[in-house]
Amino acid sequence: MDGLLKNCRIKNQLLRECLAEFLGVYVLILFGCGSVAQVTTSHEKNGQYLSINLGFSLGVTFGVFVSRGVSGAHLNPAVSLSLCVLGRHPWKKLPFFILFQVFGAFLAAATVYLQYYDAIQTYSGGELTVTGPTATAGIFSTYPADYLSMWGGIVDQVIGTAALLLCVLALGDQRNTPLQDGARPVLVGAAVLLIGISMGSNSGYAINPARDIGPRLFTYLMGWGAEVFTAGGGWWWVPIVAPCVGALLGTLIYELAIEVHHPPSAGELRTPSQGAPGAELELERDGKAQ
Amino acid sequence: MDGLLKNCRIKNQLLRECLAEFLGVYVLILFGCGSVAQVTTSHEKNGQYLSINLGFSLGVTFGVFVSRGVSGAHLNPAVSLSLCVLGRHPWKKLPFFILFQVFGAFLAAATVYLQYYDAIQTYSGGELTVTGPTATAGIFSTYPADYLSMWGGIVDQVIGTAALLLCVLALGDQRNTPLQDGARPVLVGAAVLLIGISMGSNSGYAINPARDIGPRLFTYLMGWGAEVFTAGGGWWWVPIVAPCVGALLGTLIYELAIEVHHPPSAGELRTPSQGAPGAELELERDGKAQ
Amino acid sequence: MDGLLKNCRIKNQLLRECLAEFLGVYVLILFGCGSVAQVTTSHEKNGQYLSINLGFSLGVTFGVFVSRGVSGAHLNPAVSLSLCVLGRHPWKKLPFFILFQVFGAFLAAATVYLQYYDAIQTYSGGELTVTGPTATAGIFSTYPADYLSMWGGIVDQVIGTAALLLCVLALGDQRNTPLQDGARPVLVGAAVLLIGISMGSNSGYAINPARDIGPRLFTYLMGWGAEVFTAGGGWWWVPIVAPCVGALLGTLIYELAIEVHHPPSAGELRTPSQGAPGAELELERDGKAQ
Amino acid sequence: MDGLLKNCRIKNQLLRECLAEFLGVYVLILFGCGSVAQVTTSHEKNGQYLSINLGFSLGVTFGVFVSRGVSGAHLNPAVSLSLCVLGRHPWKKLPFFILFQVFGAFLAAATVYLQYYDAIQTYSGGELTVTGPTATAGIFSTYPADYLSMWGGIVDQVIGTAALLLCVLALGDQRNTPLQDGARPVLVGAAVLLIGISMGSNSGYAINPARDIGPRLFTYLMGWGAEVFTAGGGWWWVPIVAPCVGALLGTLIYELAIEVHHPPSAGELRTPSQGAPGAELELERDGKAQ
Repeated sequence: MDGLLKNCRIKNQLLRECLAEFLGVYVLILFGCGSVAQVTTSHEKNGQYLSINLGFSLGVTFGVFVSRGVSGAHLNPAVSLSLCVLGRHPWKKLPFFILFQVFGAFLAAATVYLQYYDAIQTYSGGELTVTGPTATAGIFSTYPADYLSMWGGIVDQVIGTAALLLCVLALGDQRNTPLQDGARPVLVGAAVLLIGISMGSNSGYAINPARDIGPRLFTYLMGWGAEVFTAGGGWWWVPIVAPCVGALLGTLIYELAIEVHHPPSAGELRTPSQGAPGAELELERDGKAQ
Repeated sequence: MDGLLKNCRIKNQLLRECLAEFLGVYVLILFGCGSVAQVTTSHEKNGQYLSINLGFSLGVTFGVFVSRGVSGAHLNPAVSLSLCVLGRHPWKKLPFFILFQVFGAFLAAATVYLQYYDAIQTYSGGELTVTGPTATAGIFSTYPADYLSMWGGIVDQVIGTAALLLCVLALGDQRNTPLQDGARPVLVGAAVLLIGISMGSNSGYAINPARDIGPRLFTYLMGWGAEVFTAGGGWWWVPIVAPCVGALLGTLIYELAIEVHHPPSAGELRTPSQGAPGAELELERDGKAQ
Repeated sequence: MDGLLKNCRIKNQLLRECLAEFLGVYVLILFGCGSVAQVTTSHEKNGQYLSINLGFSLGVTFGVFVSRGVSGAHLNPAVSLSLCVLGRHPWKKLPFFILFQVFGAFLAAATVYLQYYDAIQTYSGGELTVTGPTATAGIFSTYPADYLSMWGGIVDQVIGTAALLLCVLALGDQRNTPLQDGARPVLVGAAVLLIGISMGSNSGYAINPARDIGPRLFTYLMGWGAEVFTAGGGWWWVPIVAPCVGALLGTLIYELAIEVHHPPSAGELRTPSQGAPGAELELERDGKAQ
Repeated sequence: MDGLLKNCRIKNQLLRECLAEFLGVYVLILFGCGSVAQVTTSHEKNGQYLSINLGFSLGVTFGVFVSRGVSGAHLNPAVSLSLCVLGRHPWKKLPFFILFQVFGAFLAAATVYLQYYDAIQTYSGGELTVTGPTATAGIFSTYPADYLSMWGGIVDQVIGTAALLLCVLALGDQRNTPLQDGARPVLVGAAVLLIGISMGSNSGYAINPARDIGPRLFTYLMGWGAEVFTAGGGWWWVPIVAPCVGALLGTLIYELAIEVHHPPSAGELRTPSQGAPGAELELERDGKAQ
């Protein structure tokens, strides 16, 4: 079969990268939202909040493993945006990356619904609701806690995504700690675990526009209706906008507190064109490519 | 004693590999089903669903550690089948691998029964049942949740095993992320943990025909009777057939989305005969041997 | 933006190190106290004692990741003190390190309060108390269990911090186990997890003066009042003094039981001045620099 | 202080190794029994069965980290015995190793009692009992579940320790999976976690004579009285004898199924005397030294 498959080789670099981002986010959401579905539909018998944290954490880890060698595993429009601002990723690729990231999340939500169709029907009594005792929309997208004000939610998402970028940039900073290739996907997942454990309570730690809007669109189309956009006082746009602000803030903090002060090294004289094809994209592999 | 042991050396490569597959699956099921036994017979006092997830996850990790240097640690007929289809494992070895994998699972189930004999007798009041409040057959094999339709169960096992292969092939793809030898068994275990956390609720994530049929045969013979085959609407064949379909599907997705598009490298010119003996078997060691 | 940022480069080594200690402790407390806030304000629904253990453990891990390449990631005045006593860190830097560590903890407590403002207001009914059923001071600083005597608390903190130093010094001892750069932050975090799991019950395992006094000052100023110093029979000074004693004790035990007996190696002839700039500070990187 | 400490250097190799075994077991029991104390005295509020599993698992990890470079980190008389039988450790050192291992466990139990003195007094109402609702002897040593027969307990300990040796020998077998130095302590700990999760229910998985008899002697002397030996039908000797049998069984299985069949390599021609001093002791470092 190997021979047959080789005829399908795509040589276009951007398309390859987009496919990798698509599959990476697909894996992340398939496992992440799957773990929420398991906890919800089993009434916390087959998992608890910690297992949701682990689901998204390891979901990120394997999302990075399937994509990082090809696209650098952004898996998050807020991360892509930060890298563009830093000049480590070309702006012209940004819309394509975001499109495929959202599409991966959408299709993963569909797969979770397919796999948990019987469970969701039984749990909800066949009625797909966004709020109430048997609400199931929270399996797919994030909604704020009852006590949370809109400003509190924005602050929550800004801080959460800033914390994510602080960790991710530290992991990618070879002059801080040189890491092996295989360690990074696990440690990026650990950062997401940590954020879920310490910043998950207020609004479900979306910290990723694609992770939230893709599944939200799916629930809108599949029967949960317009309430997915109106619930939580029109919450839906917060996990899109606030993470982008937070990502830039976290980037700025790490750069100003640590990275810019590293003594210049021989490596700084390299230019992007000397890297391997696509190397300038790879946040994971070399966070300091220019 | 070392000297004495050396006289027992087996030189037949296939027999060595079969022994390794046997011991690998034995370790996997000994720990995996053992963790279910502990949770069940202690009425969830000495463990919960998460500890079962960890039991199978680390069970896989150590199953891989005892066998990978010899047989490549398939530990799963669906994995062996996929590798044969991809041309990375010889078809003629397939039946032997499957036989020893099933036998390892059978003997491990017997060991778990031996170790938990007093506990199971006390828990079940001496009556070995497949369903009901003190059912103990679920310690050994998987049964579907009450709400699950047959088609829902098939979809569940296909998606679960496809997800497994997606992860395992990404871990074995050196052109995506180069990994150290020691990291792979742990990460394959992490993939199984993830599947247990996000896809375990519907039917107990068999995702491995040998893991399910070996212990099922043991319970059939040891007093649980024919109900192990009739329960769940004749569920027993689903964890045998659906994982094979899922493994092929997952393989196809990873190959078509990522692996076939890697730019050709010098390594591709190698032929299997240049590898070390048995190298073509080792999924873990070099997922891209041809 | 990269270009712009480079104009902000600070060349003063001590200031760079202080900034790194600041950010490292900030990250540690942001995640650590954040996990307590999540468990407390969600009434243990979104986390339990184990998630607090994980929050501080991984908080330390990422605190080390952001700072170790620059300052050696002490993140704890008791650790800095031990290294000064051992002659592995210059005494003159000690006050600066401590100052920035405490300031990082203070600012992180402020950030946690900001992120959990709505949650804390709702949980406490708007009344910020140190004791009682809806006490929230424990989110930020440690307080002893009801049964604990003052001497019992001192012993608890001495043993806990001695255990921390035993582990940290073993991880830094290249002649015991050579470790990769990337493994250390994770293993230091694992040591903190272990201490939280086995020595957390008595008084919340501060084992770090900065971790405790920084957030305590914040609560004092922000409305919890003087009770943060009087509660627990005037507990506040114990997590400052006892960890320093414990750190020295643990250092002494490890040195006398293991490290001093290593056979002398070629490496012992190096002098600090031959190391890279700042190398003598880096507990993590080379525990045996002299 | 470094200079002062160097005057304390011990050059006797056996004494150094015994000190390392002592400190290694001390660390293991300090954390392991500490986690039981925390779960018990907090009425499972600050930890559950899983946290005890983690306490012993990471306790082993750090016990190995403090000792492996010096003594090879046996930390368990049953492991030392197996290595002697395999010809990988000199018989004449065996009694010294066992003595110091037991002494380390004894002193660690004393430290746990010291640290949890107030908690144990409050929990037990000042009455130190082996059985009953406020029993505290189980913090230190293992006792069988009510349902367990003596033969069931022996089988449990034999299987548990055999499983431990299977895992440990696979981790030490460089021809199966080459591992980095830093990975082994973590993976040996993971094996202990796994055994605790899947084989802990029957009798608390001692699987180590020193881990059990050291703390048992301590409780006997400190006020729990002779019942620590008579409880469970005179259980105390089972965790001493059965682990030794199990260790030999596990060794035999791994050797006969995997290790003896490895094709001979150049390395096999080495003789112990060519190794570094003490190299023949180090199970962790080179499982195949002869």
